[in-house]
Amino acid sequence: MKILKTLQVPGFVAGGLACGLKKKGVPDLTLIVSETPAVAAGVFTLNRVVSPTVTLSQQTLQSAKTIRAIIVNSGNANACTGPQGMKACQSTTAAVGKALGASAREILIASTGIIGVPLPVEKIERGIPKLVKTLSTQGWPSAAEGILTTDLVTKTAGVRYGKVVIGGIAKGSGMIQPNMATMLAFLTSNIAIDKRTLQKALKAAVDQTFNRITVDGETSTNDMVLLLANGQAENPSVKSGSQAYRDFVKALTQVCKTLAFKIVVDGEGATKFVTVQVKGARTSQQAEQVGRSVANSKLVQTALFGCDPNWGRIICAVGYAGVPLQPDKIDIAINAMKLVKNGAPVKGLSPSKLKQVMQKKELILKIHLHAGKADAEVYGCDLSYDYVRINAEYTT
Amino acid sequence: MKILKTLQVPGFVAGGLACGLKKKGVPDLTLIVSETPAVAAGVFTLNRVVSPTVTLSQQTLQSAKTIRAIIVNSGNANACTGPQGMKACQSTTAAVGKALGASAREILIASTGIIGVPLPVEKIERGIPKLVKTLSTQGWPSAAEGILTTDLVTKTAGVRYGKVVIGGIAKGSGMIQPNMATMLAFLTSNIAIDKRTLQKALKAAVDQTFNRITVDGETSTNDMVLLLANGQAENPSVKSGSQAYRDFVKALTQVCKTLAFKIVVDGEGATKFVTVQVKGARTSQQAEQVGRSVANSKLVQTALFGCDPNWGRIICAVGYAGVPLQPDKIDIAINAMKLVKNGAPVKGLSPSKLKQVMQKKELILKIHLHAGKADAEVYGCDLSYDYVRINAEYTT
Repeated sequence: MKILKTLQVPGFVAGGLACGLKKKGVPDLTLIVSETPAVAAGVFTLNRVVSPTVTLSQQTLQSAKTIRAIIVNSGNANACTGPQGMKACQSTTAAVGKALGASAREILIASTGIIGVPLPVEKIERGIPKLVKTLSTQGWPSAAEGILTTDLVTKTAGVRYGKVVIGGIAKGSGMIQPNMATMLAFLTSNIAIDKRTLQKALKAAVDQTFNRITVDGETSTNDMVLLLANGQAENPSVKSGSQAYRDFVKALTQVCKTLAFKIVVDGEGATKFVTVQVKGARTSQQAEQVGRSVANSKLVQTALFGCDPNWGRIICAVGYAGVPLQPDKIDIAINAMKLVKNGAPVKGLSPSKLKQVMQKKELILKIHLHAGKADAEVYGCDLSYDYVRINAEYTT
Repeated sequence: MKILKTLQVPGFVAGGLACGLKKKGVPDLTLIVSETPAVAAGVFTLNRVVSPTVTLSQQTLQSAKTIRAIIVNSGNANACTGPQGMKACQSTTAAVGKALGASAREILIASTGIIGVPLPVEKIERGIPKLVKTLSTQGWPSAAEGILTTDLVTKTAGVRYGKVVIGGIAKGSGMIQPNMATMLAFLTSNIAIDKRTLQKALKAAVDQTFNRITVDGETSTNDMVLLLANGQAENPSVKSGSQAYRDFVKALTQVCKTLAFKIVVDGEGATKFVTVQVKGARTSQQAEQVGRSVANSKLVQTALFGCDPNWGRIICAVGYAGVPLQPDKIDIAINAMKLVKNGAPVKGLSPSKLKQVMQKKELILKIHLHAGKADAEVYGCDLSYDYVRINAEYTT
């Protein structure tokens, strides 16, 4: 598998521009187009309050055999605005269909930004014909820019193996949490594969990557990951369970993991990348639950930010994860430094040495429950002054 | 029912002093003594990792018919320190028993402070005889001081109705969350009541008060609420289900609520007191779940801190609470200002006017789900720079 430095996926064009939803000149509209009809898969937010972009894209994925394009706006989530929200989605996909000579029923849609403010859809409709003219195989950096909100950097990733190329762009830096949180990712590949197998592969990759990251434990109304595959690699169509399927899932997971890590690194106010590694749980679900409890703990996150060697907060967050466990069997380490053995501090534990270890930008919190054989990793970041600043001032 | 300005409970003495666990001269040891044997009740943390103070006090409550005293230290949680933790508890209760001429089995114990650092129990043992000499009926302010950690103010409350007096002191400002979080409360009353009824009354009062507050969603290893009743009011012993029982629960709830609110107001870095009022849920459990989801949301809390009129975050937190609901039936208001009707913003909603409303120190977030008839209130605060500062620098 080769990591691509420049993103290009055979048969796909992309672009982004400013249509006026954000401050003057800031890109806020992105279009991704497959030159030939592509099969598609999607994974969506678990929030019960969803944007009509989520509802419509779910319906379109169900009903359409193939997909031609994904239209995405940033700056406005088009969520919680009443019946006009769905109308805005329909006008948008109709405008894209018209500009591309395709049906509105072949267009997927996504939005991100502020909730509850009616979408000025006429700005998007005016932007679409211009955007279509800018589409190119080299348009991915612009496309990656048009989907950002509080993100500081664009996020792209791509790999190639044999004739198969997989590329992706993503956004997300706040409201990030396990199980899809205001994050969007759009993946494309030239692989030949049927729709059902594609969905299965996407689910497998997302569960191990996007669903394992957390910045603040929030799940947004708009999250989605979409994947288009146009078959231009002309490989024998990938069948579930085959070696070709495993190869594809591996490469797809690699792309998703790269994008997911970039989201965490760009977490609002984040200064550290934290891997919570839970071992020895009874089930992987329990391991994940413990990992999330630790990664989402405000007290752990602030201690990591301040390099405060207050490791007791980690074991405390393990304890309230809601998982049955024996406290006097728990071992904890940060990077190579052992802190807790059998639920008690290791002999001669030096807070000043721990403080030094915690200065690192990348920390691995290792938690062994000694209760079983299941493992899980959860990826998060610290909680800083800047998280508060960014979120206390977001709309204003 | 009369609110007491000065706390005094017939037949109880209390006191606090500095025994050297904290910085020189800062009170860190508290003793509450009933002059005559008292029946006792307790409610404890749900964290699976608990301090041996929790384990020992639970055992003592189970086995002892009556209780004489509660000993509490701050500055060290005596949690996660291995087998020596329980030994320290036993030495402490033995020392108290000796000083009072009582059995160690009649002494309850609690601790709060840093986790994972062995308790210098000899300092406590040296402090106890001195502390016993300071005990007085007017000692409650000192007692309230000796249990504090990052608290900025002491927390006391008391009521009288007829001959019955109920008093309480509490601590807690971080790691606060529903279902007991690093918070301690010690309640005393001169009421005559049996142990079983006392426990039932305490549970009822705590469920509506201490278990409804949240600062940061953390549950500590050491939380407990203890209640002693020495019968000196000489009322006919209170029976469960009687009018006297209802009167007692009402007064007890009042004391608990006052203390609980004082904890939230003193929440680490808190600048606002927030009541999340959920109505029209199918069950009160679901109402509470929605309330907690909103009160614990970092994005809602930071918006409240910054007076950011970003109400979409409230409905988003409602949506991910894990409760089945119909988004297009949700109404939301802050104080008297209506924001959302049927899941969409009310006509002419003015962000600048909302910003003005949000300047208030006390905010009521009203959420109506229109799904049933059950209600619940959850009490919380905002998330400020100071929360991060306090918790990034706690041990150092």
